[in-house]
Amino acid sequence: MTEYAARALLPEGLHDELPPAAEHEAAVVSRLVAVFAAHGYQRVKPPLIEFEESLTAGPGAAQGTGMFRLVDPASQRLMAVRSDMTVQVARIAATRLQKAARPLRLSYAGQVLRVKGTQLRPERQFPQAGVELIGVRSVAADAEVVLLAVEALEACGHARPVTVDLTLPTLVPAIAAALALPAALADKARDALDGKDAAELDGIPGEAGILFRGLLAAAGPADRALDTLAGLALPPAARREVQELAGLVAAIRKADPAIALTIDPGEYRAHEYHTGFGFTLFAAGVRGELGRGGRYDLVGPDGGTEEAVGFTLYVDSLLRSLPKPALPVFVYLPFDTPAAEARALRAAGHRTVAGLAPVDDAAAEARRLGCSHLYHAGAVTPVAA
Amino acid sequence: MTEYAARALLPEGLHDELPPAAEHEAAVVSRLVAVFAAHGYQRVKPPLIEFEESLTAGPGAAQGTGMFRLVDPASQRLMAVRSDMTVQVARIAATRLQKAARPLRLSYAGQVLRVKGTQLRPERQFPQAGVELIGVRSVAADAEVVLLAVEALEACGHARPVTVDLTLPTLVPAIAAALALPAALADKARDALDGKDAAELDGIPGEAGILFRGLLAAAGPADRALDTLAGLALPPAARREVQELAGLVAAIRKADPAIALTIDPGEYRAHEYHTGFGFTLFAAGVRGELGRGGRYDLVGPDGGTEEAVGFTLYVDSLLRSLPKPALPVFVYLPFDTPAAEARALRAAGHRTVAGLAPVDDAAAEARRLGCSHLYHAGAVTPVAA
Repeated sequence: MTEYAARALLPEGLHDELPPAAEHEAAVVSRLVAVFAAHGYQRVKPPLIEFEESLTAGPGAAQGTGMFRLVDPASQRLMAVRSDMTVQVARIAATRLQKAARPLRLSYAGQVLRVKGTQLRPERQFPQAGVELIGVRSVAADAEVVLLAVEALEACGHARPVTVDLTLPTLVPAIAAALALPAALADKARDALDGKDAAELDGIPGEAGILFRGLLAAAGPADRALDTLAGLALPPAARREVQELAGLVAAIRKADPAIALTIDPGEYRAHEYHTGFGFTLFAAGVRGELGRGGRYDLVGPDGGTEEAVGFTLYVDSLLRSLPKPALPVFVYLPFDTPAAEARALRAAGHRTVAGLAPVDDAAAEARRLGCSHLYHAGAVTPVAA
Repeated sequence: MTEYAARALLPEGLHDELPPAAEHEAAVVSRLVAVFAAHGYQRVKPPLIEFEESLTAGPGAAQGTGMFRLVDPASQRLMAVRSDMTVQVARIAATRLQKAARPLRLSYAGQVLRVKGTQLRPERQFPQAGVELIGVRSVAADAEVVLLAVEALEACGHARPVTVDLTLPTLVPAIAAALALPAALADKARDALDGKDAAELDGIPGEAGILFRGLLAAAGPADRALDTLAGLALPPAARREVQELAGLVAAIRKADPAIALTIDPGEYRAHEYHTGFGFTLFAAGVRGELGRGGRYDLVGPDGGTEEAVGFTLYVDSLLRSLPKPALPVFVYLPFDTPAAEARALRAAGHRTVAGLAPVDDAAAEARRLGCSHLYHAGAVTPVAA
């Protein structure tokens, strides 16, 4: 490899999107944001880099270790490249849009970067898109965001089933608190439930063990899961949470009876900061999740909190899960095609490729340039492959 | 200010786009890229960060000092955040798309960052969009990109006049070479012409002085400028360049007679790397330029070059020059509006804002939430402001 070719290699986890993938990504992001907009979510666009301490505030703390850091020569302060946009949208809602009417509906889409990829997602740059519904806690708000996430995925060409997996990350803590379980035991139970470790749960004695094993057994399709949970002798606080979740399931079903809902009441990881339900979006046959969301507390400028619910879609996973986009059709225009005719073709929706010099065989030249069609004698005709 | 509010401040030159500006920016970028696509330009999307030495290769050398740098923990190599996308698109054309048919038409759009803003453009993050037409040198190719730039600006709602200012950065060197001027004198002349410094040019004796003063006098509307240039006793190489420029002007006029063209044959700065004509896009009454382009040599993997022509639009300047976007119309849906009715409204193009709880005065609630319309009794009706 020449020196230039060696230089041209990209860092691990970073890559170029080529035609037609780059256009497809942009189209999918546009479609997502258009669906958000149709539901009254207005777009905000925070910068790619900020002061590090802004990006690690509140819910950003968990992302702190994954961000690229750099010193701002202007302020001599540490900045970071965002690894998640949620914390930025929360900052905007809590500061510049503090006086905007609540509930406040915001959407976002953009690139995020992280220092290290994972085995499942080796990319270090990927596009995110999502919404936040801020300043309200209700089943109606929760249902709105879950339904919106599904609608947005489907608008991108996702055939059903998109599955929504609901979780209650606050349920195990509520049970542990009610039964006054030692913290170590509560943590053990939480990890075991999160990891679906039945053997570990078998070792937890008494009422707590029965309940935790019950949560594990409940995991599955929503209606069956709710039935199982209803049969458990849950403490009142935990019962209220389950009832709220049942209300959410009912509200989702009312709006869209066909939606595939599952419940995993013990799932916790990646939902640590949620203050109510959490949800994860999957598509049949697609490795990994397409997005994730839930209810959380947005920390305001005076330290007070606002209740909020939202989700983030992982656009790279989404793109991998969609059918390949149709290749655009290009029409070759022989050299010196009058500008007005070329304009009329484009106005009619054609993509034109102008010949820049006369050629002997226009059809051959069209094929060479990847054009499936040729403009000749006032008509667009296919060229044989 | 509280600690959080202080933390919420953004670094100098970086800012949040709020509604409706963020949506407008995205819409403008989409429209630009759609115009590029209609002319057969296919989108590529390079990563935001790369190895520093890739970003400073070839035409990127000039940008080297303006980039944020950071060390990649994975490779321990120096990376940089792009400050310009042209060099990335050139890298893609010269490596991964090396075997693609020429002429190769590529487009791009994305965010770029730079360490320091300028007085005229204090932003340190801004969106770029542009095209490269690679592997061809001809007046037809040059005319295509100039016309495309104007069409793209106009597609975003730019009323005429968008002015295209053409320059010939290679003209002064051609004259200097033909007259065997000392390098110091040639540099002085170039700077004086670039700065429109007539007094300095008056000090240049002989034939060279006459020619350089002639170039200065020629600056202005294209037809007059070409007449003035035709009257100068230019050396043959310089004359050929002027003739090529006259050909370009004629080709642009043929396709779009109404386009406002000026020529500044002495403009040089920011066109240093151009190997033929350069151009700058202005709009009446708008401070600063909307974009810039020209002909250049793309350096290939084996050190060979390809002839190319392209332009970059400065989307932030473009946005400042456009009329303010119309505010979206929102329709308030009273609590428990049936999902099917809400869906039908959105399918008809409405943006809906769902009431999440019953309210006494739906019209007042609609106004409070910034909705100009209310859905009631099966109809969308305006609410008095």
